[in-house]
Amino acid sequence: MKTLVIISHPEITESGSQQFLLSSIADSEMITVHHLEGTYPDGNIDVVTEQKLLKQHDRIVFQFPFYWYSSPPMLKQWQDEVLIDGFAYGRNGHQLKGKEFGLVLSIGVSESEYQAGGREAFSIHELTKPFQAVAFKTGMTYLKSCLIYQFPYMTESQKMTLLIDYQQFLTRAADDSLFTRENWLIDQLLKTNKETLAHGDDLLLQHAIEAIEENRDTIDGLKMVLDEMNG
Amino acid sequence: MKTLVIISHPEITESGSQQFLLSSIADSEMITVHHLEGTYPDGNIDVVTEQKLLKQHDRIVFQFPFYWYSSPPMLKQWQDEVLIDGFAYGRNGHQLKGKEFGLVLSIGVSESEYQAGGREAFSIHELTKPFQAVAFKTGMTYLKSCLIYQFPYMTESQKMTLLIDYQQFLTRAADDSLFTRENWLIDQLLKTNKETLAHGDDLLLQHAIEAIEENRDTIDGLKMVLDEMNG
Repeated sequence: MKTLVIISHPEITESGSQQFLLSSIADSEMITVHHLEGTYPDGNIDVVTEQKLLKQHDRIVFQFPFYWYSSPPMLKQWQDEVLIDGFAYGRNGHQLKGKEFGLVLSIGVSESEYQAGGREAFSIHELTKPFQAVAFKTGMTYLKSCLIYQFPYMTESQKMTLLIDYQQFLTRAADDSLFTRENWLIDQLLKTNKETLAHGDDLLLQHAIEAIEENRDTIDGLKMVLDEMNG
Repeated sequence: MKTLVIISHPEITESGSQQFLLSSIADSEMITVHHLEGTYPDGNIDVVTEQKLLKQHDRIVFQFPFYWYSSPPMLKQWQDEVLIDGFAYGRNGHQLKGKEFGLVLSIGVSESEYQAGGREAFSIHELTKPFQAVAFKTGMTYLKSCLIYQFPYMTESQKMTLLIDYQQFLTRAADDSLFTRENWLIDQLLKTNKETLAHGDDLLLQHAIEAIEENRDTIDGLKMVLDEMNG
């Protein structure tokens, strides 16, 4: 699965959260990072290139700061110019059909304000309806969003959790089953460069992988017993 | 009451609906029409001027084609740059508080598609949540929207109805009472330039005004009788 991360941020170098997320993406054939304002500083979007890029990927991610309950203007311009009739919708416009679509939002206000009675009054689920509608209209499957509330106030531990959530958002299969989550984790652990680990940590890593696999064997065994009882 | 109509349309001269609406606005001290792309062709918004304009008006209207369930990019840029902390929200940011806010949307798809099961899946009410949130955050009262579906397919009669709806949207007091609606109508009829009317139509106009006022007298009379009975 190949993921295209379309980032829209007018001042990306000054954004702590964007820089943090970017630094976590390793060089990989599976992930393409594409910053719109950086690619088109004069605002002239190359529509043919953008459409080609979309076709080459299976999961399309919009990553942006949630200003005034929507995207920065550049991403809206991109939508209006790239997702046109005959490409993204309409007669013969099926180029995005079957792909996955998701949002990575950095949000300046705390989560609890996004509800009736809160300072923002509406939930993120309500406020992102226009993007849900884009996914629907173009035939893409809408993923659960990756929501980053008040990054500057996060503890180191919260940031580490965010990093794992973000990595999973970009690369993990969309279903939430234990099997998929374990597979993704083992995959990541196996990919770890052992030379960069402190002495002893490589052993720890190996133990973690074995523990996950052992647990799975136990679960599989229990399932077989259950199946026999039911049979 | 003074109304500011902020129009965002990248190609306004080629838009039949926008030209139709614009042609209906008479020179008036009560309505200011402000086309963003026309005012700032280089995209550099004069924030001080925009904030001054907002302060001078009581009703703020966003008028735009509803592309991808939102505004054109220029209006989003305007929101991000003009509606800033300290002006529109936040500590001491109360400049819009108490004003009225409304949307005039031209929509390319028919009304019946904007529901679950329809081609657009969501209602306009759901899709405009971000604008409702802007009004809430800035302390403005959200008005019912003026929605223009498929203008090119409208009959002449539908277009005349739209014109009256639009005029009311821009200038009529926000409450929907019979009294307010009648007052607005009488006001408009009195303002009509009688020299441009065909022979006999000025008499017709006078009769219409008298009929409305007579009806109101009857209603007022009935109310008094009711009050007496209750007393």
